[in-house]
Amino acid sequence: AIDGQRLLGRIRELGAVGRDSEGRLIRLAASDTDRQGRDLFVGWLRQAALDVAIDRVGNIFGIWQSPENTGQAPLLIGSHIDTVIDAGIYDGCYGVLAGLEVIETLKASGFSPSRPVAVAAFTNEEGVRYTPDMMGSLVHAGGVSAETVLAAVGTDGSVLGQELARIGYAGDREPGFLKPHAYLELHIEQGPVLEREGLPIGAVENLQGISWQRVTIDGVANHAGTTPMSMRNDAGHAAARVITFLLDRTKASNAPTVATVGTIRFEPNAINVIPSRAVFTIDLRDPDERRLQAAEAALAAYLELAATENVTISVEQLARFEPVIFDLGIVERIEAAARTRGLGVRRMTSGAGHDAQMLARIAPAAMIFVPSADGISHNPREHTDDAELVAGANILLDVAAQLAK
Amino acid sequence: AIDGQRLLGRIRELGAVGRDSEGRLIRLAASDTDRQGRDLFVGWLRQAALDVAIDRVGNIFGIWQSPENTGQAPLLIGSHIDTVIDAGIYDGCYGVLAGLEVIETLKASGFSPSRPVAVAAFTNEEGVRYTPDMMGSLVHAGGVSAETVLAAVGTDGSVLGQELARIGYAGDREPGFLKPHAYLELHIEQGPVLEREGLPIGAVENLQGISWQRVTIDGVANHAGTTPMSMRNDAGHAAARVITFLLDRTKASNAPTVATVGTIRFEPNAINVIPSRAVFTIDLRDPDERRLQAAEAALAAYLELAATENVTISVEQLARFEPVIFDLGIVERIEAAARTRGLGVRRMTSGAGHDAQMLARIAPAAMIFVPSADGISHNPREHTDDAELVAGANILLDVAAQLAK
Ligand SMILES: NC(=O)NCCC(=O)O
Ligand SMILES: NC(=O)NCCC(=O)O
Repeated sequence: AIDGQRLLGRIRELGAVGRDSEGRLIRLAASDTDRQGRDLFVGWLRQAALDVAIDRVGNIFGIWQSPENTGQAPLLIGSHIDTVIDAGIYDGCYGVLAGLEVIETLKASGFSPSRPVAVAAFTNEEGVRYTPDMMGSLVHAGGVSAETVLAAVGTDGSVLGQELARIGYAGDREPGFLKPHAYLELHIEQGPVLEREGLPIGAVENLQGISWQRVTIDGVANHAGTTPMSMRNDAGHAAARVITFLLDRTKASNAPTVATVGTIRFEPNAINVIPSRAVFTIDLRDPDERRLQAAEAALAAYLELAATENVTISVEQLARFEPVIFDLGIVERIEAAARTRGLGVRRMTSGAGHDAQMLARIAPAAMIFVPSADGISHNPREHTDDAELVAGANILLDVAAQLAK
Repeated sequence: AIDGQRLLGRIRELGAVGRDSEGRLIRLAASDTDRQGRDLFVGWLRQAALDVAIDRVGNIFGIWQSPENTGQAPLLIGSHIDTVIDAGIYDGCYGVLAGLEVIETLKASGFSPSRPVAVAAFTNEEGVRYTPDMMGSLVHAGGVSAETVLAAVGTDGSVLGQELARIGYAGDREPGFLKPHAYLELHIEQGPVLEREGLPIGAVENLQGISWQRVTIDGVANHAGTTPMSMRNDAGHAAARVITFLLDRTKASNAPTVATVGTIRFEPNAINVIPSRAVFTIDLRDPDERRLQAAEAALAAYLELAATENVTISVEQLARFEPVIFDLGIVERIEAAARTRGLGVRRMTSGAGHDAQMLARIAPAAMIFVPSADGISHNPREHTDDAELVAGANILLDVAAQLAK
């Protein structure tokens, strides 16, 4: 069994890194606070005597290998340590620190694996500062070039490559250098299913498709008091209609499709000036690719309609990932491990995007979920009980030991 | 007749002050660029040998008085030189500089008025940085205390009193020290009426009521991918519905009511986080007080409905001014002066708020409008032809000469 106190202590220690003056946890990818989090993690990797490797997009690997198994494809366990704005402490960090914990436990137990075992912290999984999300693992899986993502421009105008160099995490390894034999990821569910059903473990068998778009609406700035309603080119009005249409439609449907407008900005953003421009993002997801396409098509049709109303509308795709089906063999091992430990388990879908989704392109992959209290995540109230965190890490230990044997 | 070249030259010189790196004109009240504009204006007042007085809320007065008329209630001509974000060069500045031009013309002509003639530039007429709008003239008219507005907190967190002191325009005169015999204001129309009808002069007989509100909607931040639509407390969705309701309703009605949502902000404003908070402003106007109240009531009823949808909604009134009827005697003088000069004229309503609206509380007041090309204002494309600017200033000259005789 893993050392629960060590794991929980590290989760809390990392969760204290990156607090702003109001106590909010903000460790956006490649920021100064991300550097502090990375430094802490790399320190722990060195303490555990792992080989530390950092690739050109800032992905960090801690590798446990011996003269006997060097050259074998490693078992990789990973997740991320970047966070959203005003985040909880578990999202991503739990999986990374549990991966390290599993390696330390296996080492200490005298276990001698037939292949290297590595833990990874992938760059910019959240996608809040730079898009797309799961960026580091996408590069690792060969889905996009390092050059493309290093040139990504952030919400704050920064360039990822420059920021990685500035914080000292533009590494020298070529992305994808480590070809895994299999990939495992342990994560909090971030949704309500396990808690509602009273189950401590989820064996994640698939992950829904994700479509991120940025909509820009251009109208004409004019005076709020003197311009008759019929003579306006109000970019903000058009934006409100699009958002209302999309969210009302998605909410009213029986499908599991979810739609979110998380960011918005008006220009010039003055109380008595009709907005000349409105920019907002759309996050659309569905476990079924055809239904996701239908939702995108309905949105596109509405945007065409809205564009006839004296505004011009343009759309940029920020991320587009099809649904992913995980490796059934690993899913079954997770279920079996849970049963062996007497823990209730169910197969389930992941609503969130994860690095496993990208690694599944190049290796058999699956995920383990533990419950999220009230289904809350991307919120400082994100919570999972200590006992559940430890239980999840022990399932990870069991499955990792099987796959590395 | 006034010196048209001098007036047009000053409008352009002041219009060059306060440009950002992209060339946008931004001279928000009590900012560094406002200081530069004020310094330029005060320099011109001194060149014209006027007595310069600055009150505690930063209102600037240039007073022309002689030993013979000192002690008489002055004729006051005024407007403002603060601007919106990405403004045109005429809004406000035209009226202030035409006031100065009229005084210089009367002086040079050997005219000897029975009362002082003064020109005023009132603080924060636009209301973009601090609310309410028409702030300096409201204080001058006794509608709010100097202490209250000096404590006003701006969109950037600044405090007006501190900013005025910082830029050197926290004057020593008590607001309202100058009690006018009558008040005149010349302004661009900022709307489409005069241009549409091919008339160079508007005699403004009334000004519509203004209601400014800030709406704050609180929901719960949660994960965009994992949270079913039915379990969301989406502050942004509620905001979009309110904005759509208000603007659709106002647009569909036959009433002249106008509604604008010029500013919006989501928190935490991240692409994959359901907004925990949405804050936006509403600008509602109508020339009829009962209709304005009806529009406010419809909005309030909808907000109550929206608040049942898993969010809490609070509303703050930022400004509330009833419609104003200007002095008929002055309106008739404006019409007569236009006819005498062979200029087409019509009576009209002002859609924009103006300092005249506040001065009308303490003195007979009226306004002169000149056309705005395409009805555009609060936009860098704001434009009035030179000949129309000069014609308007000559009407101001004629009416001022009558009122100061
Ligand atoms: N797990 C997680 O929150 N990932 C961020 C990417 C997303 O799903 O929006
Ligand atoms: N004239 C003018 O633009 N005033 C600003 C106040 C307002 O009407 O919004």
